[in-house]
Formats: sequence, C-alpha cells, structure tokens
Amino acid sequence: MRVVVALGGNALLRRGEPLEADVQRRNIKRAVDALAPVAAEHELAITHGNGPQVGLLALESYAYREVGEYPLDVLGAESEGMIGYMIEQELAGRLPGRETAVLLTQVAVDPEDPAFRNPTKPIGPWYDKGDAERLGSERGWSFVATGGQYRRVVPSPLPRRILEIGTIRLLIDAGVIVISVGGGGIPVIVSDDGVIRGVEGVIDKDRAAALLASEIGADALLLLTDVDGVYAGWGTEEQRRLGETTPEELGALDLEAGSMGPKVEAACTFARHTGGLAGIGALEDAGAILAGEAGTRIRR
Amino acid sequence: MRVVVALGGNALLRRGEPLEADVQRRNIKRAVDALAPVAAEHELAITHGNGPQVGLLALESYAYREVGEYPLDVLGAESEGMIGYMIEQELAGRLPGRETAVLLTQVAVDPEDPAFRNPTKPIGPWYDKGDAERLGSERGWSFVATGGQYRRVVPSPLPRRILEIGTIRLLIDAGVIVISVGGGGIPVIVSDDGVIRGVEGVIDKDRAAALLASEIGADALLLLTDVDGVYAGWGTEEQRRLGETTPEELGALDLEAGSMGPKVEAACTFARHTGGLAGIGALEDAGAILAGEAGTRIRR
Repeated sequence: MRVVVALGGNALLRRGEPLEADVQRRNIKRAVDALAPVAAEHELAITHGNGPQVGLLALESYAYREVGEYPLDVLGAESEGMIGYMIEQELAGRLPGRETAVLLTQVAVDPEDPAFRNPTKPIGPWYDKGDAERLGSERGWSFVATGGQYRRVVPSPLPRRILEIGTIRLLIDAGVIVISVGGGGIPVIVSDDGVIRGVEGVIDKDRAAALLASEIGADALLLLTDVDGVYAGWGTEEQRRLGETTPEELGALDLEAGSMGPKVEAACTFARHTGGLAGIGALEDAGAILAGEAGTRIRR
Repeated sequence: MRVVVALGGNALLRRGEPLEADVQRRNIKRAVDALAPVAAEHELAITHGNGPQVGLLALESYAYREVGEYPLDVLGAESEGMIGYMIEQELAGRLPGRETAVLLTQVAVDPEDPAFRNPTKPIGPWYDKGDAERLGSERGWSFVATGGQYRRVVPSPLPRRILEIGTIRLLIDAGVIVISVGGGGIPVIVSDDGVIRGVEGVIDKDRAAALLASEIGADALLLLTDVDGVYAGWGTEEQRRLGETTPEELGALDLEAGSMGPKVEAACTFARHTGGLAGIGALEDAGAILAGEAGTRIRR
C-alpha cells in the first residue's frame, strides 16, 4: 500500500510541553516508534504540523533586535528543515538500508482566495502596541488585540497545487520515505509568467496532506493526533467513537467542531475523491488503523 | 555536462551586509541570474554556505530566553530550509517546467576525526562569562575568550559520506535541479547499529561540495565566491590570476592562505580523483568558467 501519514502538532508536542529541542526529539522518537513498522511494510510519505515551531522561530526572531523580523514563509522553511531533520534522523536510524528524504515544499494558493480578505489564524509572539503599529504599517500585518497585547493573524488559504509534486512522486515510486509538505507547505503565489513569491499565511496541514495523498495516488491517508478517533456526542453520556464510517454519515452528525473539524473535512475529501481509506486516530495506533483495528476509518 | 556549484558565503551575503531577509533575497536573485543559464544547459546540483545564517539563528535562539539554546545540528537544518527555500523559489521562477528540489542533507563524519580534539571554528553569539560557564558545564561546549567576551568554537571534521546520496543521484539522473549539502551538510555520526546522531560541528562546505561532485560523477565542480580566481603573489606587484592550471602547479605555489586555501584544496582533490574540471572564481562568471573564459580552472 501507499500511505500518507500526517503528524498533528499534538502528536509531536503534547499540550503544555515546553518547546525545548530535547522535548521535540523525545516526541519524535515516540512518533517514529509508531511509524517505523508502517514504513517497513508500505510505501510511506510523512507530513507534519509546525504551529508551535514556527511560533518559536517568530518569538526568537522578535527577541533578537539587531535584525528585522523574518517573514512567515522563510520561518516556515526553517521549520520544515528543523522538524524534517529530526524525523528523518530518527527514522533512518531505525530503518537502515531504506532511503529517507526531507523535501522542502511550496504549495500554490489562489491569490483570490477569500481567506486573504479575512485573516483568522493567530501566529507567533504577543507584541506591544508600538511594535504592532510599526509592523502593521511597515509590512501590512494584521493583528488582534487582547487586553492591551497584540497578536498577529494571518490568512489560511486553500492548498491548490504542490509545486514539488513531481519530485515527491519520483521518490515515492523509488521506495524512498518522503517527509514533505511540512506545516501544510509554504504558501506561495505563482504568477502567470512563472514567478513564485511566498505568502504570509498558513495552509491547513490536514487539507494539504489530503491533497498530497490524492496527487500521489495513496491508498490510505492517516491523520494522527493525540485522541483515538472521531467521537459522536463528545462530552455527553452517549459519546462514542466512530469506527467504520462514511463521509455521508459524518456529514449528518453534529460533531464537536474543535480540532477535529479540519481533520474530518480533509479525511472526507480524500475518501470521496479517491475511494481510498482515510483514518483519524492516535499516533500509537497508526498500524492498527491501517489494519482496521483502531481509529475512525472513513470510506465512501 | 553534470555540474556541481558551491555558492560561498560571500556569494550569498557581501562582506559587511546586514542579514536582513530582503538582503538575502536580493543576493540570491543575483546568484540565480548567474546560475539560471548554467541550469538551462546542464544537469545542476547546487550547494551553499550557511555561516552567517547559522550565526543569526544562534543569536536569535540565545536572545529568546524562555527556551534553551538549540543545538547546532538543528540550527543547521533550519538554515538549510531557509537558504534552500529562497534559492529554489528564485530558480524555479526563472526556469518554469524544470523541477527543482531542496533536500535536507546529513553528512557522516568519523568520531575519531582529530578535529574533535581541537575545536577551532568560531560560531554564533558572543556570550558573557556566566552563560559561557553554564553552557560549558551543561553541554560541554568549548569557548575562546577575547576581552572578557566568550565565543563558542566547534570542530570542523572531514566529510566522509553523504547519507542522502542515493536520493540526490536519483533526482539528478531525472533532470531535477538539486539544492543539497547546505552549509557542508549537517555533521552526524552513524553508529554500528545504524543509529544517527547530530554532531556539534561544522563541515567545510567546499570539501563537502567536492565529495558530492565525486559521488554523483560530476564533470565539473565550480566553487563560486566574490573574487575572480586564485592569485599567485597576491598583494605583491607580481600578483596574477591563474587561468588553466593543475593540482601540481597549485601545490608548488606559495598561495595566500586566507579564504582561498580550503577552496584550492577541495578543487584539487576533485580534479585529482575524478579527472573533471574544478573551477574557482566569481559568481557572475559561472558560465564563463565552464566555457574556459574566466576563473581559475584546475585539471589534473
């Protein structure tokens, strides 16, 4: 089978943990414990979130005042290097003889995407009023204010095209484990004459993973997080985890929005468009979800 | 022809320039002006330095005190993402239809390399005495002290093996322009059981470029910087740029050591071992060096 795995932010950094390098390494080791058996049996492409890591890089860039704040697309590229490196090193150490590659990934978005008129995704440090006004006028950044502190908000446009998809296909076809589309990929706009420029925004990583899975003809897409599946009636006495289900059944349910909303949407898109298996569940259950023994498994 | 180009630190950031994101972009645009015609005609692999960029990332990591300093290998991975992204974006925009890939690269070094007993390469911020002592005892870092300020020094071991070489070959064979081995690659030690761990060190990027060029069977290796070749008698009245030359002729000359020393050594190693052309010269002359019209051109 050809499998795409998306490691959620909460799979790489548990809620409330500090973002120390060794904490990240420990969590990545745990992720690789779950993924190595999958990689040993299947063709595997790995994507991952980068929210906390880009946040840290933005905080660091803001803390060092001798050089101006770096734009979000460049910080995104840094985070793809950081996280990709740690995953590759751990995975390659576990599967000697198997090639592993971390590929920097740009994802084209539509300049007319309505998200650009309505930035909603908070990112990076809290700024004081003076800095927020300066950055707003110098760079056109948008902010939300809470209690006298300002936080930047950026748009979250839809992913349209993975620029490096040809290379990703080539590597997967050759049996290489590919780590790509980190953080949803770096959003870029490609103009009619081919010029590419980075965009200050964040692409939803589950949507980007679903696009990747469709584009490389994956048999299964696994969206892994720190809960063991999608629940109906979450928080009520009747709450129950959904096992085998369909996009139609999920659409009819009143699901708790929260962090599962984007995962369910991305999983259903993949299942509907490709006929493949879309699984949502806990990182540790990766193999069991594929085997039909855990998680929420969606097929059309 | 198959060509490996190494962009020196001074090719990407002119001496004395501030490390602002837009300064980097402008210089990378200039580099791509020189490389796009080469890429249009030849198979191309690009490597690059990362000294100033890793320095900035270390300064930023030190400036933000809520999280501990990140280790050098992870900062190196971040810098490969940062620089690779900016080069790829500019190059892909100039050559639509041609695939371009940025590949994170680990380079195995020998744990017995004598460099580990003698760290010499200064890196990152100046620390005060308290922080230097803390980091020395917590992490085993070495420092040099100058006028009450402390700067970290790390070893510069020889590159032995590029871990991702199979993937690089696969991509070059398919006509993809590959950007890899950034900053000389991230130095790692691979233990007998295959486990990989990052090393706090810096691999000379010209040596790593020469290894890459040998390993992918390149016909030419171009080491590009901000001077137009290797000079005999530099700074004297008889100074002259060497045009066509050999490793033997270079070995017999009393060359100004400075920044050209490592380039000459790496170029001679490649020329001797492979019979290919090793060129040293100015970024702008990339095409002219290949055509035999500029730079210092070394063949055995």
